[in-house]
Amino acid sequence: MDEFEIIRRFFTRTAGNPGVIVGVGDDGAILRPDPGRDLISVLDTLVAGVHFPEVFSPDDIGYRAVAVNVSDIAAMGGRPRWMTLGLTLHEVDARWLDGFASGLFVAASEYGVDLVGGDMTHGSEVVVSVQITGDIEAGKALKRGGAMPGHGIYVSGTPGDAAAGLALLQSNAPRSEAADQLVWRFRRPLARVELGQSLCGSASAAIDVSDGLFTDLEKLLAASGVAGAIEVDNLPLSSELTELMDRDDAIRFALSGGDDYELCFTGPDEKMAEVALRSGVKVTRIGEIGEGHGLACIRGGKHYHYDDTGYRHFS
Amino acid sequence: MDEFEIIRRFFTRTAGNPGVIVGVGDDGAILRPDPGRDLISVLDTLVAGVHFPEVFSPDDIGYRAVAVNVSDIAAMGGRPRWMTLGLTLHEVDARWLDGFASGLFVAASEYGVDLVGGDMTHGSEVVVSVQITGDIEAGKALKRGGAMPGHGIYVSGTPGDAAAGLALLQSNAPRSEAADQLVWRFRRPLARVELGQSLCGSASAAIDVSDGLFTDLEKLLAASGVAGAIEVDNLPLSSELTELMDRDDAIRFALSGGDDYELCFTGPDEKMAEVALRSGVKVTRIGEIGEGHGLACIRGGKHYHYDDTGYRHFS
Repeated sequence: MDEFEIIRRFFTRTAGNPGVIVGVGDDGAILRPDPGRDLISVLDTLVAGVHFPEVFSPDDIGYRAVAVNVSDIAAMGGRPRWMTLGLTLHEVDARWLDGFASGLFVAASEYGVDLVGGDMTHGSEVVVSVQITGDIEAGKALKRGGAMPGHGIYVSGTPGDAAAGLALLQSNAPRSEAADQLVWRFRRPLARVELGQSLCGSASAAIDVSDGLFTDLEKLLAASGVAGAIEVDNLPLSSELTELMDRDDAIRFALSGGDDYELCFTGPDEKMAEVALRSGVKVTRIGEIGEGHGLACIRGGKHYHYDDTGYRHFS
Repeated sequence: MDEFEIIRRFFTRTAGNPGVIVGVGDDGAILRPDPGRDLISVLDTLVAGVHFPEVFSPDDIGYRAVAVNVSDIAAMGGRPRWMTLGLTLHEVDARWLDGFASGLFVAASEYGVDLVGGDMTHGSEVVVSVQITGDIEAGKALKRGGAMPGHGIYVSGTPGDAAAGLALLQSNAPRSEAADQLVWRFRRPLARVELGQSLCGSASAAIDVSDGLFTDLEKLLAASGVAGAIEVDNLPLSSELTELMDRDDAIRFALSGGDDYELCFTGPDEKMAEVALRSGVKVTRIGEIGEGHGLACIRGGKHYHYDDTGYRHFS
C-alpha cells in the first residue's frame, strides 16, 4: 500500500457536514464558512511511539487525537467543524491503520467534525498531528484572560480520573469496576463542547484541563492578571477515585492529573449557577478569584501545600 | 527551556495581518474570515530526521515547511493567511530552534502568513507539520478535475532543478555557479501564489509539482477523466540543468524531479497565453489534453519511453 492507497482505504470518509466544498483528494480542502462567524484554529500532536508505547491501542490514539483538539475548541465556546491530519508512520500495518481510523472517525462523528485533508509520511515512530477548525459567533469566543476579582472558579466533571486511569494501566493494580471506569476516562476523553457553548456570554474566562487543573488554572490566572484560591475540600472527586485511594492521593490526582479535558472557568456566581443548571453537566465551584497573582490552595482555612512535581504513581 | 518558554522565545511573532483576533497563547487562535470567501485548508509534514538528515539546515526546514503548504494553496488560486505548527523535537537545541524559526518566519513574511498557534512535543526525531488556511473568492478555487480535451498543458518555471539540486547535495559533484543555483532551487522552493491567482477563471485545472511533473500531471488527468500527451522537447529546461548534464538526463529530471513546486495547469490556449503575459512568470506549453486516460510522452513524433522508477542519481 502506498500513501494514496492508504488515504483511499482508511481516510476517505465524510461526515457530510455542510460547508465542505472539496474534501480529501485535491491540493487542499475548500471550505465555506458561515457568514458572521469567527474561526477557531487548534492543533495538537500526539507522539504515540514515545508517550504511550504500550497502554494505547490504535483506536485510543485515533480517538484521542480528535478529542484533545475538540476540547480546545470547546474551551473557547466554539463548534468543531473541519479537521486535517498529519500522520507519520514507521510501517504500514493495516490492522493498526484500521484501528486508528476507526477511533478517529468515531470521535469525528461524535463531535461532528469532517476529515478534509492532510498528509502521510514515513518516520521512525508514530506521530499524529491533528488540526481542527471550529467556528463561533463573531466576537463571542471565550478566552483565558477575562477573570476578575470576586468571580467564582469552577470545574466540570471529576478531574483526576484520567490520570488515575493511566497510572492504573501502567501498574499491576488489580482490576475492578472502579478501575475500569477510570481507565475508560483516560481512553476516551470527553470534550465539553455543549458546556463551552453555554458558557459563552456568561463566563469571564475558560481553559481546558489538559496538563492538570492546578497548572492550567495558573495559566488562566496569569492571562487574566489575577490571583486565585482553591478550597481543596470542594474538589469534585469521583467515587471511583476515592474508592481506590485515600483522600490525600485523590486530591493530588485531581490537582495534578492531566488528560481529563474538563473545563475550568470563572464568572459571576449567579450566572454560573444558571449555566450549571442549563448545561446538565456536573459543575462545581472550587474557589474564587482575587487580586494579585498566583494560585493558592486552602484546606480547612489553612494553606494547603501542593507540590506539582511529586506523586504520580498509583498505589 | 520548557515548551512554553520555547514558544515565547522563538515562535511568538506576528505578521500583523488583519483577521487575527487572538494568535499564539490561548486555547486556540481566533480568526475572522473576510465575507464572501471560501477557505482553503492544507497540511504537509516534513520528517527531518529521516528525509534529509544531513543536507538540510534548520532554516531550510523552517522555510520549506511553509513554502510547500503555500504551494498547495497557490495551486488552487488562493491567498495564504494563517498557519498552525506541530513541532516534534528530539532535543531542545537553541541554535537549531533559532535557525528553524528564522527560516519559518522568512517564508511566513514572504507569503504574508501569520503563525497563530500549534503544539510542541518530544519525540525521537524532528517532525514538522504545518497547516495553513488560505482564502479565495467563494466558488472560484481551481481544482484538479476540470481539464478538457483540446486544452493545452502548461508548466511554470523550469521543473527538475530542485531534484537536481538535491542530487548535487548528496553527491560529491564539484561546485560551480550552476550547481549552486540548482541547490538554491532545492533549498528555497518558490510557491507560485500570484500565478495561481491569475489562473483563476482562466485555467481548467491545476496542481503543484511536488512529487514530479509526470506523476502530478497523471493525478490531474485522472481527476479530470482525460488523457494527456507531453512533447518532451518542449519541456522548459534551465540552462543550469543542461550545463551540468546531457539532455536525456535533464529531461528525466524535468519529468521525475519533485520539490520544484511549480504549477502544472491546463486551459484553452488563447486564455493561457494571456495569463502567461500578465503573470510575468515563465510559462511553457508542454502538451495537450485528449480523450481517454493516461499520460504519454512524445519526442519527434514518436512515443518516448519514460520510466519513473529509473535514474535518480547525479552523474
